[in-house]
Amino acid sequence: MTEVTSRPPLTEPTGAVVPSSVPTHWYNLAADLPEPVPPALHPGTREPLGPADLAPLFPMALIEQEVSTERWVEIPQTVREIYALWRPAPLVRALRLERALGTPARIYYKYEGVSPAGSHKPNTAVAQAYYNAIEGTRKLTTETGAGQWGASLAFACSLLGLECEVWQVRASFDSKPYRRMQMETYGATCHPSPSDLTESGRALLAKDPHTTGSLGMAISEAVEVAAGDPEAHYALGSVLNHVMLHQSVIGIEALEQLDALGESADVVFGCAGGGSNLAGLSFPFIGRNLRDGATARIVACEPAACPSLTQGEYRYDFGDVAGLTPLLKMHTLGADFVPPPIHAGGLRYHGMSPMVSHARELGLLDAIAVEQEDAFAAGIEFARAEGIIPAPESTHAVAGAIAHARAATTDETIVIGLSGNGVLDLPAYESFL
Amino acid sequence: MTEVTSRPPLTEPTGAVVPSSVPTHWYNLAADLPEPVPPALHPGTREPLGPADLAPLFPMALIEQEVSTERWVEIPQTVREIYALWRPAPLVRALRLERALGTPARIYYKYEGVSPAGSHKPNTAVAQAYYNAIEGTRKLTTETGAGQWGASLAFACSLLGLECEVWQVRASFDSKPYRRMQMETYGATCHPSPSDLTESGRALLAKDPHTTGSLGMAISEAVEVAAGDPEAHYALGSVLNHVMLHQSVIGIEALEQLDALGESADVVFGCAGGGSNLAGLSFPFIGRNLRDGATARIVACEPAACPSLTQGEYRYDFGDVAGLTPLLKMHTLGADFVPPPIHAGGLRYHGMSPMVSHARELGLLDAIAVEQEDAFAAGIEFARAEGIIPAPESTHAVAGAIAHARAATTDETIVIGLSGNGVLDLPAYESFL
Repeated sequence: MTEVTSRPPLTEPTGAVVPSSVPTHWYNLAADLPEPVPPALHPGTREPLGPADLAPLFPMALIEQEVSTERWVEIPQTVREIYALWRPAPLVRALRLERALGTPARIYYKYEGVSPAGSHKPNTAVAQAYYNAIEGTRKLTTETGAGQWGASLAFACSLLGLECEVWQVRASFDSKPYRRMQMETYGATCHPSPSDLTESGRALLAKDPHTTGSLGMAISEAVEVAAGDPEAHYALGSVLNHVMLHQSVIGIEALEQLDALGESADVVFGCAGGGSNLAGLSFPFIGRNLRDGATARIVACEPAACPSLTQGEYRYDFGDVAGLTPLLKMHTLGADFVPPPIHAGGLRYHGMSPMVSHARELGLLDAIAVEQEDAFAAGIEFARAEGIIPAPESTHAVAGAIAHARAATTDETIVIGLSGNGVLDLPAYESFL
Repeated sequence: MTEVTSRPPLTEPTGAVVPSSVPTHWYNLAADLPEPVPPALHPGTREPLGPADLAPLFPMALIEQEVSTERWVEIPQTVREIYALWRPAPLVRALRLERALGTPARIYYKYEGVSPAGSHKPNTAVAQAYYNAIEGTRKLTTETGAGQWGASLAFACSLLGLECEVWQVRASFDSKPYRRMQMETYGATCHPSPSDLTESGRALLAKDPHTTGSLGMAISEAVEVAAGDPEAHYALGSVLNHVMLHQSVIGIEALEQLDALGESADVVFGCAGGGSNLAGLSFPFIGRNLRDGATARIVACEPAACPSLTQGEYRYDFGDVAGLTPLLKMHTLGADFVPPPIHAGGLRYHGMSPMVSHARELGLLDAIAVEQEDAFAAGIEFARAEGIIPAPESTHAVAGAIAHARAATTDETIVIGLSGNGVLDLPAYESFL
């Protein structure tokens, strides 16, 4: 008989069996780039940021990862145990879709919708919550649009014993209550943004009491609260280098899964908003292109309504509206750009991950813009053939891949990044149908 | 270069690689029962049903499975290929929950929420759609309450090239639109029930134009349409013997997964409404108890508000309100019993699978009734420890297991049947919180 007398901290490994197919290390594209990614700049001095500038917002481990050029970064055992709840994520041959399209191409999809939050976002949420927890953070703050990121961070904080406070863009808070309920079920607190809980929120409300909010506004609120509370930190779900690093588990697994099948990718389609799903899937492929002379072509698929990579300027810009964030060198539509209310809320950001932008400038990836109608039509074709209803974000990658497969004349190999499922986005499908 | 010139029918195998851990056969408890399950009776003659009585509603393969006493029934390759999209479903050690409860017991959960429809229902939906498709059925009709079954059948019909027409209880049709949207995204048609499309529907509306409907009413409508259309058949998501057969993949996998870990179950908790999830998980365990002298205890967990197994009479009763279905020997609260509007819509049925009822009478399984409040409290405890938000149905099994684990004094092994996820049931959690 076993007597349980005390409980170890939530950050201690539980001893769960982790399959060897769950990656042991993250991959860092910075190690293989021919030129370094331009650094983030201090918004006041316009000098490169130092660790001290970021310490009010992030734990030291993440600050180090942000500037690391180490190729492989070890994944802590506790993080691997949580990953093992849904990882390795399946790589599936879309044979029914191939049959429906009548294409000679072989189509695979890498499916991140199996995570408890339904998207790829927990890959970095768990890592960020873990490093904060072991450095003694009590609470994480963040912003969220449609809610995928907020729900993912709430999930991670719940498992690792942190409080979680989320500012959700008011338009989504009011019209899409399910992800707020998901956050609350995990024990998080969720406020509509702008709120009267912060100075930036009150200023925005004074200017326009009926504003429906934006991601840039919600970031300002979450950053302000974290910066003002010594026990709180801030977490960002995309854009930053350490987020791209954590998401690399997607592509690491996909490469191994393709290798096991004796396949190599000719072309990889990923959707791109802030860039984290695209980077997570494609950076390990780009690394292999650079190191081993592989020739996988990477295609970033962004919404035509928010076309930062295909139409934006490549320059230093703020990540938020209030100008509280560092300046990032990225493809941007301007920090005050207000994208139209498209259904793929996760792709509705004015900027792009500096690493993705840099890779684009170096010619390491291509980008296309996809119209919303074409994205949904592709999503429905995929759902009816393969049985999975893709997230509206993911349908952009599906649309790119379907158009490519329809035109294919050889048995090339196509990989689709299916970043999430669309179960909580069914009203978007409804309005399309 | 490969030229694609024609497409094979959707029922042909695609050649997908199916892992050997996806079962090759279903298990039929009827082969091991000490006494046979009492037969279904014709509603007019009260004589045992013959195949001809069922032919207007079901394909011959399913009619044969309904009365089969063969122990192992081979799973068609096309069905296995579709199962492989999410099967084998994970069996996970709930180490974080154990830690939170401070229990010496080892807790495992078998998680069916990974299916594209989010529950165990596709296990039989795919099989039923397949046998109908190969026998030339053009369309399947069915009823659904909250929508899990309707969405699962819509998914299966979409992949196998059948039309799908669903009557959804009006209260759910109006108040829970997401699963209707899911059905429509898969290409199915969904009507509120009662509708003016059927005689039984019109009669019910004439009696009460503002009725919010019931499963019994929706069954009458779906059966009437199938019976009147020579190209259509009807599909039922629970209760019948062939449904229990198809669901046995859950328990077959769980036994293999436990064996691989060197574990054997001391007690198995499953939620019970119509009985299909409970049977799917537990019948392979009961078979091993009967054949090999194993001693796993099975506990059916039903809602206190709809307590057919713990409070119902064991007698012949109709499956629907209009008396169109065969008479089934089962634990029943009466075909005209209207259960209160509990959140676990999938457990809101007046009767119980005749095989489950029979097993209960033979002492092969136990049953407990769980209050809704206790079920949700357990669901939240599970979600915050393990990261998965259980379906409201599944929380009944979780509550049974948590109470058992809290009282445990030895390192016994507990298995929970987690029949689905609660992503589309978040408003139910919201009202509890």
